[in-house]
Amino acid sequence: MRVLFDELKDLVNEIDALESIVGLLDWDQEVNMPVGGIEGRSRQLAIQARLAHEKLIAPAIKHLLTALKPYQDTLPYDSHESSLIRVTRYLYDKASHIPPDFQARLYEHLGKSQTVWLKAYAENDFASVRPFLEKTLDLSREYSSFFNGCEHIADPLIDLNDPGMTVSTIRHLFKEMRDQLTPIIKDIARVQIPPCSSLTKFSPELAQLSFGREVIEKIGFDFERGRQDKSTHPFTVQISPGDVRITTRVNEYDFWNAFSSTVHEAGHALYVQGIAPTWNGTFVAHVASEGINESQSRLWENIIGRSKNFWHYFFPRLQLYFPETFANISLDTFYRGINRVQPSSIRTEADEVTYNLHVIMRFDLEIQLLEGSLSVGDLPEAWRQRFQEDFGICLSSDREGVLQDPHWYDGFIGGQFQCYILGNILSAQFYESALSTYPEIEDEIRRGYFGTLRAWLKNNIHFHGRKYSPQELINRVTGKAMTIEPYMQYLKTKYYDLYNL
Amino acid sequence: MRVLFDELKDLVNEIDALESIVGLLDWDQEVNMPVGGIEGRSRQLAIQARLAHEKLIAPAIKHLLTALKPYQDTLPYDSHESSLIRVTRYLYDKASHIPPDFQARLYEHLGKSQTVWLKAYAENDFASVRPFLEKTLDLSREYSSFFNGCEHIADPLIDLNDPGMTVSTIRHLFKEMRDQLTPIIKDIARVQIPPCSSLTKFSPELAQLSFGREVIEKIGFDFERGRQDKSTHPFTVQISPGDVRITTRVNEYDFWNAFSSTVHEAGHALYVQGIAPTWNGTFVAHVASEGINESQSRLWENIIGRSKNFWHYFFPRLQLYFPETFANISLDTFYRGINRVQPSSIRTEADEVTYNLHVIMRFDLEIQLLEGSLSVGDLPEAWRQRFQEDFGICLSSDREGVLQDPHWYDGFIGGQFQCYILGNILSAQFYESALSTYPEIEDEIRRGYFGTLRAWLKNNIHFHGRKYSPQELINRVTGKAMTIEPYMQYLKTKYYDLYNL
Repeated sequence: MRVLFDELKDLVNEIDALESIVGLLDWDQEVNMPVGGIEGRSRQLAIQARLAHEKLIAPAIKHLLTALKPYQDTLPYDSHESSLIRVTRYLYDKASHIPPDFQARLYEHLGKSQTVWLKAYAENDFASVRPFLEKTLDLSREYSSFFNGCEHIADPLIDLNDPGMTVSTIRHLFKEMRDQLTPIIKDIARVQIPPCSSLTKFSPELAQLSFGREVIEKIGFDFERGRQDKSTHPFTVQISPGDVRITTRVNEYDFWNAFSSTVHEAGHALYVQGIAPTWNGTFVAHVASEGINESQSRLWENIIGRSKNFWHYFFPRLQLYFPETFANISLDTFYRGINRVQPSSIRTEADEVTYNLHVIMRFDLEIQLLEGSLSVGDLPEAWRQRFQEDFGICLSSDREGVLQDPHWYDGFIGGQFQCYILGNILSAQFYESALSTYPEIEDEIRRGYFGTLRAWLKNNIHFHGRKYSPQELINRVTGKAMTIEPYMQYLKTKYYDLYNL
Repeated sequence: MRVLFDELKDLVNEIDALESIVGLLDWDQEVNMPVGGIEGRSRQLAIQARLAHEKLIAPAIKHLLTALKPYQDTLPYDSHESSLIRVTRYLYDKASHIPPDFQARLYEHLGKSQTVWLKAYAENDFASVRPFLEKTLDLSREYSSFFNGCEHIADPLIDLNDPGMTVSTIRHLFKEMRDQLTPIIKDIARVQIPPCSSLTKFSPELAQLSFGREVIEKIGFDFERGRQDKSTHPFTVQISPGDVRITTRVNEYDFWNAFSSTVHEAGHALYVQGIAPTWNGTFVAHVASEGINESQSRLWENIIGRSKNFWHYFFPRLQLYFPETFANISLDTFYRGINRVQPSSIRTEADEVTYNLHVIMRFDLEIQLLEGSLSVGDLPEAWRQRFQEDFGICLSSDREGVLQDPHWYDGFIGGQFQCYILGNILSAQFYESALSTYPEIEDEIRRGYFGTLRAWLKNNIHFHGRKYSPQELINRVTGKAMTIEPYMQYLKTKYYDLYNL
C-alpha cells in the first residue's frame, strides 16, 4: 500500500505544481505583464488550467483512490496518509464533474474578461465589459449544471470557495447578522465623529510602502519566503510554500488604503507561510476555505490592525515615518479616525461595521443574477438602487458601483463574497479562543510583540492547511460550531465605547 | 488534409504555450522569486519541462506528421503550411531522442545549480558549485549519448543551439579567425589609447535606466510588447509574441556595463518582436538559431551602438542625462573610450576585438570537459592558465574566471559559446547586405533615424522566425554562405582608423 500511496503522492505533486503555475501566470499578469501579452497569456492560462484539470480527473488518480480506500479505512483520521488521501479524494470528486474543455474555456474567457475590466474600471465604462460578464454568468450557470441535485443553483459555486456552505445556511446567517447590525448602525448614526484629516494628507508612496513593510515584518510576514508588489486590486498568491506573494495599491492621499490592504494580505500570507512543511507539494498545503482565509486577513486588518493596543505601539513609529502628516495629532484622534463609521461606496475602504452590508448586498445580487431574476444589463442600476436603500447614498458612477470589485470579472458569479462575512465572524470567534488561552496577548500587542498570537494561529489553524474541513477546524479550535455572537459582541463593545453610547 | 493540419497546429499551440511558461518560470526566478521559492520552483520547472516534452514526443504528433507527409510534399517549400510542418518535424525528430524523464531531471538539476551558482558567484566560491557542475557535465554527456553516430560528443549540444554546426566546422572557423585576429591585436597593442575616465565616474542608476530606455525605444523596442528589469546576468526571454522581456544590470561606476547590455538585449528583443504574427503560437515563432540571434544583439550593441554615427546623435542626449559626468568631454574622447581595446577578464565587458578570444577559449574548454581530457575539478586552474596564455593576464579570482558566465550553471556544458562568434561574423555580413541595398542607413543613424535598418532586418530576418534554417536564411539574405571576411574587414577598418595604424 505504501507503493500506491507514494504513487498517489507523486501524481498529486505534479498536479499541484501545474496548478501553482496557474497562480504565477495570474500574478504575473496583474503585476508585470505588458499589455501586448494578453493574447498569449489567455492561451497559456487556458492550456495550463485544462492540463492540470485533466491530470486530476485522469483514471490514474481514480484507480489509486479506489485501491487505497481499504488502506485509508484502517488509518487514524488524523494521520498524514489518511488526510492526504481524504483531501485528494474530496478534490477529485468535485473536479470529476467538470469537463477539461470547460476549464480551458473558462480560463481563456476570464483572462480576457479581467483585462477588459481593468480598462473598463479605469474608464468607468460598464458597457465594454458587459458582454464578458454575460458570458461569465453563462459559464457560472454551466459550472453549476455539472452538479445534479443541488438545492440552489449557487450552491456548487459557494461550495467551491467555502466547502459545506449553501445559499440556505448563508441566507439564515446574513439575516441574523443584518437584524443585529441595523440597530447598531442606527445607534452610531446618532453620534458624529469628525474625519481625521491627517489620513487624507499627502503621504509619500515610498514611506507608505516602507512603513507597511516594517509592520508586516513585525507581525511575522517572512520576506525570504514572499514578496510584496503593487497591483490594481490587492491580492495574495501562493506560488509555492516558500514563495507567497502579496500586492497592494497606494494612494498618496489616503494612507489607510495601502496600509489596511497590506496588513490584510499579510494576514492571508501568514496563513499559507504557516502551513506545515510536511504538506508541501500536496493538496493539503492550501487554505481550508476562503471563509477561514478571510478570518486570518480580517483578524490582522481589523481586530488587531484597527485596535488601540496595536497603535499604542506603532503610532510613534508612524509619526517618525510621516512627521508632517501625523506628528501633530494624538493617538486618540488617529484611532478614532481609522475606526470612524461612515457609509461609503467602496467595499475595501469601508469601516468594519458597514462593511458587512456591502457583502450582503453583493451576495444577494449574485444570487439574483444566477436565478435569472436580474439581468447583467440591469445590474448597474440594481446595484445603485440597492446601495441607495442600504446606505442612503446615491452613487455617481459605476466605478464606485458595480465595477469596483474584480471578483465577477476574474472569477465566477456566485460564491464570491460570502467569505468576507464568514471571515469577520470567524476572526472574532478565533480571537476569543486565543484570548481565553493566552489573555496576555492584548498586553503583548501593546508592547509590539505578536509572537504569542501568531504561534496560536499557526499551531491551531495555519499548520493544518486543508487537513480538516472548515467545520471540523472551527470545532477543533473553538470547541463549537461557527457562531456570530463573538463578532457581534466585539463590534458592540468596540463601537459603543468609541461612540460613547 | 486541412483537418489534420489544424489538428497539428492545435497540438503545437499547446506545446508552445507549455514551453513558453517554462520561460516565465525562468524569468521569474531570476527577477522576482524570493529565496524560499527555490525548492518549489525547481519542481515546477522540472514538471513543466517534462510535460511539454512528453506532449511533443507523444504519438499524436508523430502520427500527424506521418499522415501529413504526402500533403507537405505537394506544397511549395515557402508556404505557411509546409513551413509549419517542416519546423515541427525537425523539432519532433530532435526531441524524440530524449526521454521525458531526462528532461525533468535536467531542469530540476539546473534550477538548483543556477541558485547555487548565484551564491558561489557572489562569494567567489567555486568549490560549492563544483558538484553541480560535475552533474551538469554528466547530464550533457548523457544528452549527447541519445544521438548515435555523431562525429563528436559535442555535436548534438552544438546543434541544439546552432542547427547544422559541428565541432569540426567551428574549429575550422575559429582557427581562421584566430589567425587573422592575432596580428590585429598585436598591431593595436603598439598604440596606447588612454581610458576615458568619465565612463567610470558616478552615473546614477535611475538616469542610466532612463537613458537606456530612451535609446532602445528609439531603435524600436516596443514597451507595450515587452519590459525591462534587473537581474544578475542580462538576458532576453520571449514569454509570448506580445511579451518579450529583457533584463540588465547596473553598476553606478561603470556606465558602459548597463548601457551595452541594454542595447544588446534590445537587439534580441527586436528580433522576436519582429516575427510575423502569422507564426504566433507555433514553433516557427522563435529565433532561427542562437548564432542568428546573437547577430542581432551584437549588430545593435557593437556595429551600431559603438559607432561614431550612433553617438553623433546620442552623445548630446547623454550629456543632458549626465551633465556632471559627460558634459566636459568631447564626442571623440567618448567614442575612443568605448572602443578602447584592452584585454580584460570579463567576457561581457570586453572590447569588440579581444571578445572573440574569450569565446574561443570557452569553446575549447567545454570541448575538453566533454572529451574527458579536463575534469571539472581542474577547470578553474585550466581557465587561469589559458587566460594567461591568451590575454597575458593573471586572474586573481574565480569570479573573474570560471564563475563569470551563467551558461554552464543554468544549461549544458557544450554548444553554449560558439553563437557569440557566429553572431559577430553574421552581424557584419548582414550589415554589409543592408548597406548595399540602403547605403543611406549610416547617414540616417547619424541623424537618429533607425527605421530603414530596422525594417530591413525585420523584413529579411526577423519576420521569418524559424521558417528557414540558419544556412538557408544566411544565403537568402546575403546571397552567400557564412563568411568571416566582412567581419574581419569591419574590425580592421574600424580599429586601424581608431588607432591610426
